[in-house]
Amino acid sequence: MTSFDPTDYAFERKIPEGDNVERQVCAECGWVHYENPKIVVGSVVTNGEKFLLCRRAINPRKGFWTLPAGYLEKNETTAEGAAREAYEEATAEIRIRDLLALYSVTHISQIQIMYRAVLDKPEFSAGIESLEVQLFSWDEIPWDNLAFPTVYWALHQYRQIKEEESFVPFSNATGDMLKRSLEIIKR
Amino acid sequence: MTSFDPTDYAFERKIPEGDNVERQVCAECGWVHYENPKIVVGSVVTNGEKFLLCRRAINPRKGFWTLPAGYLEKNETTAEGAAREAYEEATAEIRIRDLLALYSVTHISQIQIMYRAVLDKPEFSAGIESLEVQLFSWDEIPWDNLAFPTVYWALHQYRQIKEEESFVPFSNATGDMLKRSLEIIKR
Repeated sequence: MTSFDPTDYAFERKIPEGDNVERQVCAECGWVHYENPKIVVGSVVTNGEKFLLCRRAINPRKGFWTLPAGYLEKNETTAEGAAREAYEEATAEIRIRDLLALYSVTHISQIQIMYRAVLDKPEFSAGIESLEVQLFSWDEIPWDNLAFPTVYWALHQYRQIKEEESFVPFSNATGDMLKRSLEIIKR
Repeated sequence: MTSFDPTDYAFERKIPEGDNVERQVCAECGWVHYENPKIVVGSVVTNGEKFLLCRRAINPRKGFWTLPAGYLEKNETTAEGAAREAYEEATAEIRIRDLLALYSVTHISQIQIMYRAVLDKPEFSAGIESLEVQLFSWDEIPWDNLAFPTVYWALHQYRQIKEEESFVPFSNATGDMLKRSLEIIKR
């Protein structure tokens, strides 16, 4: 099966009628290719003092460690999506607690919604998108082999609130945390 | 200009290779029509004790009152998008404070991200998507003519925290608030 290739279409960049943003518009049929930001839902999942991480079986960042997370599907709540992703990637039945963070990853037009979640029983296995799944204590986390800066942000921000009953959710890391997290993608 | 009409394509519902969800796939070219949930960003904007509302100039719900809100665009942060929408709909230069609520409107696959925001100077006017824009005290809010249930949720949830320094953001209304909000769409 071939996949969608926008270069097959006679696209030109223009502002569609009644709109105020330039978009890819097909010069032949007038179809407007709306490119909306996408929503990633995921969670920092703990079992006792340990964190559930998945080693990616797919690109981007195949072989690197990540939190259970993925694209929200139609007709899902964000919490349902985060729970589904943990099941798909780690066959883990998690209990979503509350919103940990909302990130805007503007250069790839991605909004990431991260929850605090619990794995009550340490039962899991690698789903098809994972090479392996493992529980790590904080010091065992493979910091040098994390997949994305936001994985680093979410783990460290969780660490700031841990088991607090309630807290204000975090947003994009800044300062030193941001700086350290960007080292990840050089590897 | 004609707009995109999926019925022009030879779509069939199937699970694309390497995927696990049924999608619309073109039987001729194999193009997968990914339908991702969309992100709406908006805000409860106050000026003193008053709330900024816009009367919609476009459908759905033309003529009804709403909060400044709209679709997040590519390469924007959620806060930037909410501020842009307030400017487009009400030429209002708002100051975003913090996250008020995250709603999952599953039947239309919409995630709504609502902020608490302030209009420092009461300067505004109707943008092209608004028939009129107005500041209302709580009792003056046109409760019988609100556009969407989530407008009702956001206003009432704001009312619960008002000027609190920090708070846990809200999610979908439940119980009585949900029930009362659904009366809106019968009008």
